[in-house]
Amino acid sequence: MPGAKKGILERLDAGPVIGDGGFVFALEKRGYVKAGPWTPEAAIEHPEAVRQLHREFLRAGSDVMQAFTFYASDDKLQNRGCAANATHSGAAINQAACNLSREVANEGDALVAGGVSQTPSYLSGKNKEECQKEFRKQMDVFVKNEVDFIICEYFEHVEEAEWAIAVAKETQLPVAANLCIGPDGDVHGISCEECAVRMANAGADIVGVNCHFDPFVSLKTIKLMKQGLEAAKIKCHLMVQPLAFHTPDCGRQGFIDLVEFPFALEPRILTRWDMHRFAREAYDLGVRYIGGCCGFEPYHIRALAEELATERGKMPAASEKHDICAGGLKMHTKPWVRARASKDYWQNLEPASGRPYASAMSKPSNWGVSRGHEHLVQKQSATTEEEIDEVKKFKQ
Amino acid sequence: MPGAKKGILERLDAGPVIGDGGFVFALEKRGYVKAGPWTPEAAIEHPEAVRQLHREFLRAGSDVMQAFTFYASDDKLQNRGCAANATHSGAAINQAACNLSREVANEGDALVAGGVSQTPSYLSGKNKEECQKEFRKQMDVFVKNEVDFIICEYFEHVEEAEWAIAVAKETQLPVAANLCIGPDGDVHGISCEECAVRMANAGADIVGVNCHFDPFVSLKTIKLMKQGLEAAKIKCHLMVQPLAFHTPDCGRQGFIDLVEFPFALEPRILTRWDMHRFAREAYDLGVRYIGGCCGFEPYHIRALAEELATERGKMPAASEKHDICAGGLKMHTKPWVRARASKDYWQNLEPASGRPYASAMSKPSNWGVSRGHEHLVQKQSATTEEEIDEVKKFKQ
Amino acid sequence: MPGAKKGILERLDAGPVIGDGGFVFALEKRGYVKAGPWTPEAAIEHPEAVRQLHREFLRAGSDVMQAFTFYASDDKLQNRGCAANATHSGAAINQAACNLSREVANEGDALVAGGVSQTPSYLSGKNKEECQKEFRKQMDVFVKNEVDFIICEYFEHVEEAEWAIAVAKETQLPVAANLCIGPDGDVHGISCEECAVRMANAGADIVGVNCHFDPFVSLKTIKLMKQGLEAAKIKCHLMVQPLAFHTPDCGRQGFIDLVEFPFALEPRILTRWDMHRFAREAYDLGVRYIGGCCGFEPYHIRALAEELATERGKMPAASEKHDICAGGLKMHTKPWVRARASKDYWQNLEPASGRPYASAMSKPSNWGVSRGHEHLVQKQSATTEEEIDEVKKFKQ
Amino acid sequence: MPGAKKGILERLDAGPVIGDGGFVFALEKRGYVKAGPWTPEAAIEHPEAVRQLHREFLRAGSDVMQAFTFYASDDKLQNRGCAANATHSGAAINQAACNLSREVANEGDALVAGGVSQTPSYLSGKNKEECQKEFRKQMDVFVKNEVDFIICEYFEHVEEAEWAIAVAKETQLPVAANLCIGPDGDVHGISCEECAVRMANAGADIVGVNCHFDPFVSLKTIKLMKQGLEAAKIKCHLMVQPLAFHTPDCGRQGFIDLVEFPFALEPRILTRWDMHRFAREAYDLGVRYIGGCCGFEPYHIRALAEELATERGKMPAASEKHDICAGGLKMHTKPWVRARASKDYWQNLEPASGRPYASAMSKPSNWGVSRGHEHLVQKQSATTEEEIDEVKKFKQ
Repeated sequence: MPGAKKGILERLDAGPVIGDGGFVFALEKRGYVKAGPWTPEAAIEHPEAVRQLHREFLRAGSDVMQAFTFYASDDKLQNRGCAANATHSGAAINQAACNLSREVANEGDALVAGGVSQTPSYLSGKNKEECQKEFRKQMDVFVKNEVDFIICEYFEHVEEAEWAIAVAKETQLPVAANLCIGPDGDVHGISCEECAVRMANAGADIVGVNCHFDPFVSLKTIKLMKQGLEAAKIKCHLMVQPLAFHTPDCGRQGFIDLVEFPFALEPRILTRWDMHRFAREAYDLGVRYIGGCCGFEPYHIRALAEELATERGKMPAASEKHDICAGGLKMHTKPWVRARASKDYWQNLEPASGRPYASAMSKPSNWGVSRGHEHLVQKQSATTEEEIDEVKKFKQ
Repeated sequence: MPGAKKGILERLDAGPVIGDGGFVFALEKRGYVKAGPWTPEAAIEHPEAVRQLHREFLRAGSDVMQAFTFYASDDKLQNRGCAANATHSGAAINQAACNLSREVANEGDALVAGGVSQTPSYLSGKNKEECQKEFRKQMDVFVKNEVDFIICEYFEHVEEAEWAIAVAKETQLPVAANLCIGPDGDVHGISCEECAVRMANAGADIVGVNCHFDPFVSLKTIKLMKQGLEAAKIKCHLMVQPLAFHTPDCGRQGFIDLVEFPFALEPRILTRWDMHRFAREAYDLGVRYIGGCCGFEPYHIRALAEELATERGKMPAASEKHDICAGGLKMHTKPWVRARASKDYWQNLEPASGRPYASAMSKPSNWGVSRGHEHLVQKQSATTEEEIDEVKKFKQ
Repeated sequence: MPGAKKGILERLDAGPVIGDGGFVFALEKRGYVKAGPWTPEAAIEHPEAVRQLHREFLRAGSDVMQAFTFYASDDKLQNRGCAANATHSGAAINQAACNLSREVANEGDALVAGGVSQTPSYLSGKNKEECQKEFRKQMDVFVKNEVDFIICEYFEHVEEAEWAIAVAKETQLPVAANLCIGPDGDVHGISCEECAVRMANAGADIVGVNCHFDPFVSLKTIKLMKQGLEAAKIKCHLMVQPLAFHTPDCGRQGFIDLVEFPFALEPRILTRWDMHRFAREAYDLGVRYIGGCCGFEPYHIRALAEELATERGKMPAASEKHDICAGGLKMHTKPWVRARASKDYWQNLEPASGRPYASAMSKPSNWGVSRGHEHLVQKQSATTEEEIDEVKKFKQ
Repeated sequence: MPGAKKGILERLDAGPVIGDGGFVFALEKRGYVKAGPWTPEAAIEHPEAVRQLHREFLRAGSDVMQAFTFYASDDKLQNRGCAANATHSGAAINQAACNLSREVANEGDALVAGGVSQTPSYLSGKNKEECQKEFRKQMDVFVKNEVDFIICEYFEHVEEAEWAIAVAKETQLPVAANLCIGPDGDVHGISCEECAVRMANAGADIVGVNCHFDPFVSLKTIKLMKQGLEAAKIKCHLMVQPLAFHTPDCGRQGFIDLVEFPFALEPRILTRWDMHRFAREAYDLGVRYIGGCCGFEPYHIRALAEELATERGKMPAASEKHDICAGGLKMHTKPWVRARASKDYWQNLEPASGRPYASAMSKPSNWGVSRGHEHLVQKQSATTEEEIDEVKKFKQ
């Protein structure tokens, strides 16, 4: 019986909560999500794949099964000829996603969260009422399915986040709110400090960032948010679910701007040792909801849970196939690999890329267009070759 | 009824066959395999995870479901305190692996292959009879399960491969044989040309390499093997199942020697565009069995199948969620990402690592110990801290 | 007759003045200066070498011949067993340096500047009077030699710079004052804005930075200084003489902290194209005294003078052997090198290091000791092996 | 009286001889040579600059003053609108160069060498007689000036080198012959082994390579040459004068093909520690004439002389301002720099580039045109913009 589980706020008060990783990137690599539209119809079409990924995160230590509802708003499904729209309604996808997350959550002690994220409607300049209508359709499904709390995430503009939080509050459930911004603030130039205060004032119980930046850049953002909240004498929980890609070279728009997005990010993938450092630094900063977004695989989540095993008083199930100090290597057949069986070895290693013709950093596209720009206005029909040529000319 | 499917040799005569990817690395990241011993007891303990990975490779275009029997010999299970040994026999693991691969193969048109690989017995200096006894135990399971063909793979020494091929030939099934060597030849210094000839003469119908080196280094090895076979006037099929990690800096022992092995190889992971190039170059060289090993995820296999879609006359099922020319990006909400919707863009990109404190290449450990060296002799009890200290001192 | 030349302030009012490059690094590579003590006894011992370097800078477009008096204070000569101290007095070295700079300045239209820099006395915690005594000894020589103006440079602490400026003002000559700091401010933590104001208030006619950081980091510092001066409504000229080494990874102490200092800085050397960009950005920021410090070779100075040729109304003499748009390559025997004969080609090139085992950035030593720390106190006798072992232990 | 000095062959028999560095690159940076035509009219126009560079190399330990006659053949001076041709004859330049090298050689115990190099005539497809006529004009000057030996160097084709050696032999002086090739052999595809044998058979007393490749690539070439000579039972001295730029990524044409040639090679410059390794490896391979070419500055030559100080029984004069074990740093004012006062520290350091947007290696232009190709045919008039556009189109 799910109701018997401790709620998210209770858990956060007690100690660190481990989130899960991003589904669209992980399932794209497994063959179930299309890069570009990134819509989650796999919950209906290939439930076994979504269920398996939930299970892997649960096994890795996740305390929350986030229903796979990212970009499952109707306006996103109708955008630019998205194929999913032809066969599935947003409501059906959201329902299927809730089923799967609840099923797996109940295989362990995890909670279920329903999530909404930024809408094409907002980017196209639509008003508060229109955007909130999109959010409300998803919320209705979440309420019907008795999810444990709501996550409003992946907002580039705090204004849209506030609109989403307002709708989320109608559910009476705890609400977490995450922007996808870096230390420079939101895309409209509003500072991290102010963004945090505005989200908390809008009703968010948990405030933070997800996606768009790597863990270490994201912790800088969180630090600023924390300062803003403290200055405003607001008490709320902090949350971070960053990328598993190193992004020291991003501009304000995050990894979307990187020339490697989304099909050549491999060299930027974090190791498990990067994740240990991330978990420790996040915890030390006072963040209590620590998870991941795009690029996180189950072993990344396991590294977070292992790093904080003492604080959590438990090890994840998947640690039966792992050893926090690289101890599994003691069983390797080759002696020089056995010699690497220590945490020190790995934490002091800067891993080579094997790519002598590539650089360490790249220069972001940095178009600098934001809400309301003609190129951002969404449309329902597929993008034509002529339109592609046009955007190519706009800025290379 | 499996018998109705075309056999592996018939398929190779007709055109390119796409293999699958390596299971131990993929399942390690998903939480089901322990790095170090790398043993496949997940086939028994977590069949849903193994089944799902098989399905993803099938969906990605794999024509062969390789039973997950890597390192499932009894002598490997008994090595250095491997936990799996306590609960599962080698025979039981091999049986479970056969069940799963056959189940998923029959969901499509794929064949099932049973595989054996190099043994701790050989590294410890045991003789032909003892090593062959290990191989024969696995072969017995494969024959009982009516696998479609045998793969002898991951041998560092051609001598042991010959011993394995001899046992594999007893099954009357087609035999593929792969060494895990680079252009410098096997660990005893035998040239690639000679290795290929010896494997063919030992009875292998298909000859090549797997693991230990990246696709482009491996194709250099294959080129030498092909020259050796041609000079000896031997006709047989060529096969390559390399790493999905860039290894321009490896020595003779391959990626095992890299200081990043196995827990910090992330920056070396190949992109899908690297895979397109690999598939094309392999095909142009005359290789007809093209697959992957450690590091390959389903999307890597899909890239191979997509590159050779014309030659194969079909697209993989998972391409419903992909577009060979990055076309999915036309549906992205951001115009500058839509501008990246072309194959040209991606094939000309050298992706940045996001790691300014790391180098492009690293210097391999290069211990240079080989068969019979005291540090290579295997033992059943767990490695002690004292033994680790000893190997650390041997060479830093 | 030198007096007939326009003075430095008049020249700065009229347009950009080009400085010269650093002597100690250039002459170290030519074999005349010892890295470590960096003292300028070559002015006495090998005048032909110093004269030739002056001439090359003059020919490259330098408007100022800075007398080679860096670290020519008596307390520096007496530090840690410096050999020069045995044979030459500070006064004799300063005199020889003045002779050479005047001789070459008069071969063209250049001015002569006498310079003082931070003293071991200050680092050792000595008081204002003691430090000023060192400065005054050098100033006496400059006045006797009728130098055209004074440069107080390479100060890590604005307090010591103020002491030096005060002494320099006694000469009645124009005074330029440069700290060797980055955007984080001086080593005592005083902001760039405040540093600039304090130097101007102490009497400096020209204010800026030299050494320790690359041109682009240094321009960030200058920008802050400019803001400080503007906020304080102070009008004075800006000056920048940075390193010719890329230092994106430096901490507060600058390149001294880099693990590559001073014997492995080669991969960081700026190209002439970097210098073009530097000159343009400096000019656009309003800096009118633009020169170089350690690492600058004559061709770097020439690039500054060429970039600003229009603003200066003249080309340097050495441009007879150069072409601002890489046009000399049109005369190359190989056609593919002729194809590189354009400025565009070079300005868009990110040059490879040829060092696949090296990283892009390094982590500075960052000891964080400052004025008064026991390890900073200077002494006259040579450093012993025991003392070296002790500092090695202090922080690796 | 020069005749009293020991000759080059005698010196080579006795132990290592240290050469000097390349003049055109060093003097280009000092403002006296134009990149592109690279002609040495500075010997006439700015003798003080040439003299000073000679002196610095002498002081750094060079045993040979190579007259600055590189590209001083009449056909080179008349190529593509070279300005020097208008005012100076080849004979005059060669004479001035001989004067300067003799003057400085006599300030120490150095020998004077006269040098010839490959001709535009050969690249244009002219015959043996025509090419030899060019060589003979330079040889006449060398004989008249009683140089101590002849160096035929910088030949991409062994055939032209043979023609040059034949003319050099007419002088009755010892002859050294160097190709500018890598391990792949000459530009016509002739192997290093054969090239060495052919040069020795043509009469060269000393055989080796100069320019085009870095020291470590060049030593691979020398190793092959040595094997060729040994197989042919020919005894002669080996010589190497490589670049001071790292070129692991060059193709057959060497650094000319690198996209960074010639104006962005800075990040590739070798450190003094690279030079120590080079000197040691060259000596151990049996090379007895060890010097440098483009990119070598006096401190690089000093490093060679210091590394072989024991074998040579002496230290270079410039070592009075250096300490072979970085000992000068013991006198640094900062303790963390004093902690770097050991050879170990420097030899284990892989220096960072400070360029996070640049890669470690680049892809050479690799046009693959060779002798006789229309784009290689030389002409007297200046290259036009149209011709540049044409070569740009030929291959980007």
